[in-house]
Amino acid sequence: MSTVPVTRLVALVRETTPLVHCLTNSVVREITADVLLAAGAAPAMIDHPDEAGDFAGVASGVLVNVGNPTAEQVEGMHAAVAAAGAAGTPWVLDPVAVGGLALRTQLATGWLDGAPGTAPTAIRANASEAVALAGTGAGGRGVDSTDDVAAAEPAARELARRTGGVVAVSGPRDLVVTAPDSGATRTTWIESGHPLLQKVIGTGCSLGALTAAYLGAARAEGIDDHDAVVAAHAHVGAAGTVAGRAASGPGSFAVAWLDALHALTPAEIADLAAVTDA
Amino acid sequence: MSTVPVTRLVALVRETTPLVHCLTNSVVREITADVLLAAGAAPAMIDHPDEAGDFAGVASGVLVNVGNPTAEQVEGMHAAVAAAGAAGTPWVLDPVAVGGLALRTQLATGWLDGAPGTAPTAIRANASEAVALAGTGAGGRGVDSTDDVAAAEPAARELARRTGGVVAVSGPRDLVVTAPDSGATRTTWIESGHPLLQKVIGTGCSLGALTAAYLGAARAEGIDDHDAVVAAHAHVGAAGTVAGRAASGPGSFAVAWLDALHALTPAEIADLAAVTDA
Amino acid sequence: MSTVPVTRLVALVRETTPLVHCLTNSVVREITADVLLAAGAAPAMIDHPDEAGDFAGVASGVLVNVGNPTAEQVEGMHAAVAAAGAAGTPWVLDPVAVGGLALRTQLATGWLDGAPGTAPTAIRANASEAVALAGTGAGGRGVDSTDDVAAAEPAARELARRTGGVVAVSGPRDLVVTAPDSGATRTTWIESGHPLLQKVIGTGCSLGALTAAYLGAARAEGIDDHDAVVAAHAHVGAAGTVAGRAASGPGSFAVAWLDALHALTPAEIADLAAVTDA
Repeated sequence: MSTVPVTRLVALVRETTPLVHCLTNSVVREITADVLLAAGAAPAMIDHPDEAGDFAGVASGVLVNVGNPTAEQVEGMHAAVAAAGAAGTPWVLDPVAVGGLALRTQLATGWLDGAPGTAPTAIRANASEAVALAGTGAGGRGVDSTDDVAAAEPAARELARRTGGVVAVSGPRDLVVTAPDSGATRTTWIESGHPLLQKVIGTGCSLGALTAAYLGAARAEGIDDHDAVVAAHAHVGAAGTVAGRAASGPGSFAVAWLDALHALTPAEIADLAAVTDA
Repeated sequence: MSTVPVTRLVALVRETTPLVHCLTNSVVREITADVLLAAGAAPAMIDHPDEAGDFAGVASGVLVNVGNPTAEQVEGMHAAVAAAGAAGTPWVLDPVAVGGLALRTQLATGWLDGAPGTAPTAIRANASEAVALAGTGAGGRGVDSTDDVAAAEPAARELARRTGGVVAVSGPRDLVVTAPDSGATRTTWIESGHPLLQKVIGTGCSLGALTAAYLGAARAEGIDDHDAVVAAHAHVGAAGTVAGRAASGPGSFAVAWLDALHALTPAEIADLAAVTDA
Repeated sequence: MSTVPVTRLVALVRETTPLVHCLTNSVVREITADVLLAAGAAPAMIDHPDEAGDFAGVASGVLVNVGNPTAEQVEGMHAAVAAAGAAGTPWVLDPVAVGGLALRTQLATGWLDGAPGTAPTAIRANASEAVALAGTGAGGRGVDSTDDVAAAEPAARELARRTGGVVAVSGPRDLVVTAPDSGATRTTWIESGHPLLQKVIGTGCSLGALTAAYLGAARAEGIDDHDAVVAAHAHVGAAGTVAGRAASGPGSFAVAWLDALHALTPAEIADLAAVTDA
């Protein structure tokens, strides 16, 4: 059982169409935009340093995904993170393949330890990336997840304490952890999805973008960040469960997943995703 | 009723396979290429400043889409626009999110007011972008269209006068306007499509690329630019109408739309899209 | 008849999940990653010059596709090629549109004639590109293939001699040629696929990436490079044959192709692709 208002949050995203500014890797820009549109949000990919700061200040949420960065995009990311901090826009860090590669590891770690207000509102990672980002393990090989989610729980707690934000670790079961200054740690598990989600590129990256959408919609209504992150995972996972029933392979799965992100009602999503407060 | 030879133009594109040089945003490159292939044209995405000028001189048509530009791509766009002007290659401007962002607004506006021969052959925009580009309104938030098409008609006329080219405004009904130096303004409306076109990223951007294909094919036969732009919109819209009948959501819609772009006969396209000269 | 162990190689890729480092053009990054995942390999797109060298040294195989390069990516390609050479990692060159464009033609030709150990392990091209790269013809217009595969056989032999590697020419029938220093030239034809493969962007580029996956898996078991290249073509072609049976057009073809890349058994792939040693 959980206190997270999944139904209300799914409806809220669809009613308010949060605009998500994505600075994301070039492999997954199209599917990320399609996922945001299907789920009820609106995408804008804006990487140029001369535009990224201006836009992050007016978006509902920002995604920074460090997979396959260019030098120019890294400048845009810094501009967007600074503008999001100044404007109070929630932003999500997806530390793709951090641990295995020096440039992005330094980049992501820098935001954890940077100036006040620069830490991410939420981190969305797989288990290896969470462990690597927390500095508590060796990391995976590229984008694979070679650690399992439960093993990454200490790393997730450490990152939550260090940033004051929400940390989500994706896997067969998703883990969401928050460690606010003022209160007890919250830990929530979401059980949903389908193994074919791992056979379509960008499903995890798109979840990071949708997390930014949920954070933007939730904050506008005064709903907790932790709840927003959980609901984004429930939406993606529930659509995966439904898509898995009809799919003949990863091609038809991706199509059915986009359809389900769009078609499932808030109540169906809440029913399909088993959300448990630990 | 309309005098636009839609049937003839669709057949012509398929017979001549116009090669479209696309300098377009990184979110939609794959779907843009797939749309050109499905519709009967051929894509080539070439952004490097050392290659873009050479290629624009030999292509049948050029698309310049200013969504999410890089500094290097902007150089390539300038080279392509100059080469298209020198070679007489028709080129299409898609002013994505102009109005809301300074860099791309200056870029797009510069081509309207630049040296002789540099103005776009056609502009393909949504209503907000057309209004913003004409300087007659405030523009939308990012890539959304917050003005409706009829309200953008004065802006479209202004842009048509200013460039001497064709201006298309996409929406539930599409508007195509031309204001030639020598004659009366032509205004055509196209009614077709489906609301799910708004839920798949890149459908509008792909229409811009297909417009360049139609312009290239039409010019080779001495057919008017205005007719070419209308026929491109009819092709995309008719395929959207058919796809909407079968789709369960945006995923299956996108698949069915690509199938229909390829499978519909010229006569079916002319039947499905209601084209009216105003 | 052929001595190529297609069944064994398909099974091997799925068992060992070779990690392919792709430096590829921005149009096809998503479909390339999806093809690798569907077929049983793992993708990583890493272009930044500060990361590309490190990663190429640990990957199972590397793909360098010169379609639509950026200046920064070209630096990354040089770093990856050098690191692959130093580490003995097999790498595949896809000379997209070489011949028609100066920058990429110089780039690709440079690797043929560069320092020892820098020549590609395999080249995957269409007929026009093979002819242009070998310097034995005029090349095509952009990415089209205007020469047929049989006409490109002398060019393929010349490239195989010059590099000491494997050369594959894709078309209605695929040709694979090797000219080892020490032995007789091997020539293999693969007959499979479907015309709709030409109507979906990135199917050939993805085949280049999958070729790198097969090379990585094969080398780890001491299987010949030539056999690996043939098996990659059989896998892609067999899936195309199956997809063509169900498709209504290029949209549904692409979906069915990804499903078939994933679902076909090794024995089915060997049955569907007619492989003949010449």
